[in-house]
Amino acid sequence: MTSHPAAADLLARAAELDAADPLAPWRDQFHVADPDLAYLDGNSLGTPPARTFDRVQQVMRDAWGRDLITSWDHWVDLPREVGDLLAPLIGAGPGEVLVHDSVTVNLYQVVRAALRLRPDRRVIAIDPGDFPTDRYVVDGIAAADGMTVRAGFDRLDDVAVAVRSMIDYRSAEVVDIVAEQARADAAGALVIWDLSHAAGLHPVGLRAAGATLAVGCTYKFLNGGPGAPAFVYVASELIADIANPIQGWWSQDDMFRMGPVYEPRPDIARLQLGTPSIVALTAARCGIEVTAEAGIEVVRAKSIELGRFGLACCDALGLSTSTPRDDVRRGGHVCVHEPDAKSLTKRLFTERNVLADFREPDVVRLGCSPLTTRFADVARACTAIADLRA
Amino acid sequence: MTSHPAAADLLARAAELDAADPLAPWRDQFHVADPDLAYLDGNSLGTPPARTFDRVQQVMRDAWGRDLITSWDHWVDLPREVGDLLAPLIGAGPGEVLVHDSVTVNLYQVVRAALRLRPDRRVIAIDPGDFPTDRYVVDGIAAADGMTVRAGFDRLDDVAVAVRSMIDYRSAEVVDIVAEQARADAAGALVIWDLSHAAGLHPVGLRAAGATLAVGCTYKFLNGGPGAPAFVYVASELIADIANPIQGWWSQDDMFRMGPVYEPRPDIARLQLGTPSIVALTAARCGIEVTAEAGIEVVRAKSIELGRFGLACCDALGLSTSTPRDDVRRGGHVCVHEPDAKSLTKRLFTERNVLADFREPDVVRLGCSPLTTRFADVARACTAIADLRA
Repeated sequence: MTSHPAAADLLARAAELDAADPLAPWRDQFHVADPDLAYLDGNSLGTPPARTFDRVQQVMRDAWGRDLITSWDHWVDLPREVGDLLAPLIGAGPGEVLVHDSVTVNLYQVVRAALRLRPDRRVIAIDPGDFPTDRYVVDGIAAADGMTVRAGFDRLDDVAVAVRSMIDYRSAEVVDIVAEQARADAAGALVIWDLSHAAGLHPVGLRAAGATLAVGCTYKFLNGGPGAPAFVYVASELIADIANPIQGWWSQDDMFRMGPVYEPRPDIARLQLGTPSIVALTAARCGIEVTAEAGIEVVRAKSIELGRFGLACCDALGLSTSTPRDDVRRGGHVCVHEPDAKSLTKRLFTERNVLADFREPDVVRLGCSPLTTRFADVARACTAIADLRA
Repeated sequence: MTSHPAAADLLARAAELDAADPLAPWRDQFHVADPDLAYLDGNSLGTPPARTFDRVQQVMRDAWGRDLITSWDHWVDLPREVGDLLAPLIGAGPGEVLVHDSVTVNLYQVVRAALRLRPDRRVIAIDPGDFPTDRYVVDGIAAADGMTVRAGFDRLDDVAVAVRSMIDYRSAEVVDIVAEQARADAAGALVIWDLSHAAGLHPVGLRAAGATLAVGCTYKFLNGGPGAPAFVYVASELIADIANPIQGWWSQDDMFRMGPVYEPRPDIARLQLGTPSIVALTAARCGIEVTAEAGIEVVRAKSIELGRFGLACCDALGLSTSTPRDDVRRGGHVCVHEPDAKSLTKRLFTERNVLADFREPDVVRLGCSPLTTRFADVARACTAIADLRA
């Protein structure tokens, strides 16, 4: 096993950074099964908070097993309650966020609702490099309704709805949502922000940006568990105008009356669908709680430091990266380009106990979750890449 | 506290029936927190199987906490695997059932998919007394597409899609799906069967009936947990023609390639959406397993006995019921009509430890889950109603 000449220095520097890291103790709030694993895929599936196991167990045993159907008296508000807990982490207000279902379904609902608000426009704009579910959902709606899908956001004056990821899932590039929301507003286009790679990592600032619609996921930086429920944000001013295309009984005002005519709820819960999974929501709540307790501003501050250090490692080791150098424009991961990225990612795990993610065509994605990722993990990953490619 | 003269005899008869019940030992497979509770709401929220707690804990601790992102290698097939486990319980074949999301979303998907198969017809038929989510979803689609909603199924020759509950959520009346499917087939109408009150209770026999489309829930008789994922059935012959209106990345062929163009999967998974909740699916699997192990035919046999006994109790106590007398036409609950049903249902719980369900306008619904409900529970509920109304 060879080792790059810069490796020892980087590992030593990482140890210093970890020792000085004010967020380091938060790692103890998580269930870390293998302390030696460098887990750099928390932006695909976050590490479980330690409290989640007991809390889910308690909900299953007591609320479900003992209290049975009577628990619906309090469960019924859970999607909004968890939404209110999440809201400050993305700069939203109370009553503006609902946690339920998947990003796919949330996005579908909001695209359809937004299109009804721009009946005179026939264009949906999306980045052709955006995450697949966003593109496929948009393509499906456009095909069904005979609309045009436009690649990119250069021209917005005839766009009904623009679907945009705030942080790119491959490069980690951050969009300036204040500027881009203002540009869309001036052009009369609605923007749906996909915050999947931002929520729990970046303060986002939805209301401050004047953003009106957003979706995102809770299983990445919010540590909500595999397939944890997603979220949807609607600015309070717009809620009354939002029509849910999937009129489930949970979106009905006075739902247990089960009346003959559909009358949507007046609040964000008008986007609800059917009965939500309570175990899934319980796990999501635990993950959101931990980040809320740590504080999203300090999480972002460490995220910036992790990114800087990752880039410094790449530079010192001669690794190629497309991750933005500008702190403001960089999200939560560092991308290393390697021609043989797929097999290299596998070898990182099997030979070095470094778990990263491969992304087509040539990216080893090093995801940094500020509450669990150590600077040492980043140093080990980068030095291992340098070794294995040698 | 008065007691009806027939009460003692009914309670004694119940004790005999419980002693002779071959399914009685299966109650031990469930977590029964209060053995004295007469729980007659398992058709709203089924009792947890004992195995569920450990299994969910294990999946959280080992598969999520220890194996992290690598667990997706096997989780990715879970919605179909759990679907295959459920399939024989409703008379479906392998590869025809997918367990995911809510009944609401599954129904929306299948109604939209079915409408595309009957482009020349403009009518959706539904019973105006059907469960709210079915009615509201149909109303929403019809309004969006300018279609007509017809009340009832008398005329089908111009109907594109009929949405029908196999077992009525209030009266427990069972539709003859063999006859009704044949009538719809002859008229060229597609039927979507809602099996929410049938799955896990009744063998249904989808393929034997020639049924092509169905949805249903797993949190009632299948004991999958609060808000457990629902299921969708598509007859194998029809799968290739089904277009998912919500084109999430989980419905994409070769989804991890994340290609530029949406290409639906060839199998039932083309109805998948976003990332499904693994904890919710794990709990659902446990519930489905227990019923599969007990056997749906013996479950149905006990269900018939419980219903007969419930009706015998009503007759002996002078209670008014609309539940069908014919075993073949009766599902899993007995409805007692009482002018003051709402407050009576509350008093049953607070004064007699009998947990039943109120349904507008005047129904006390006594849900009988064959694997957990004792004949004694039915006798206690009926005699308590007779006492409290006196």
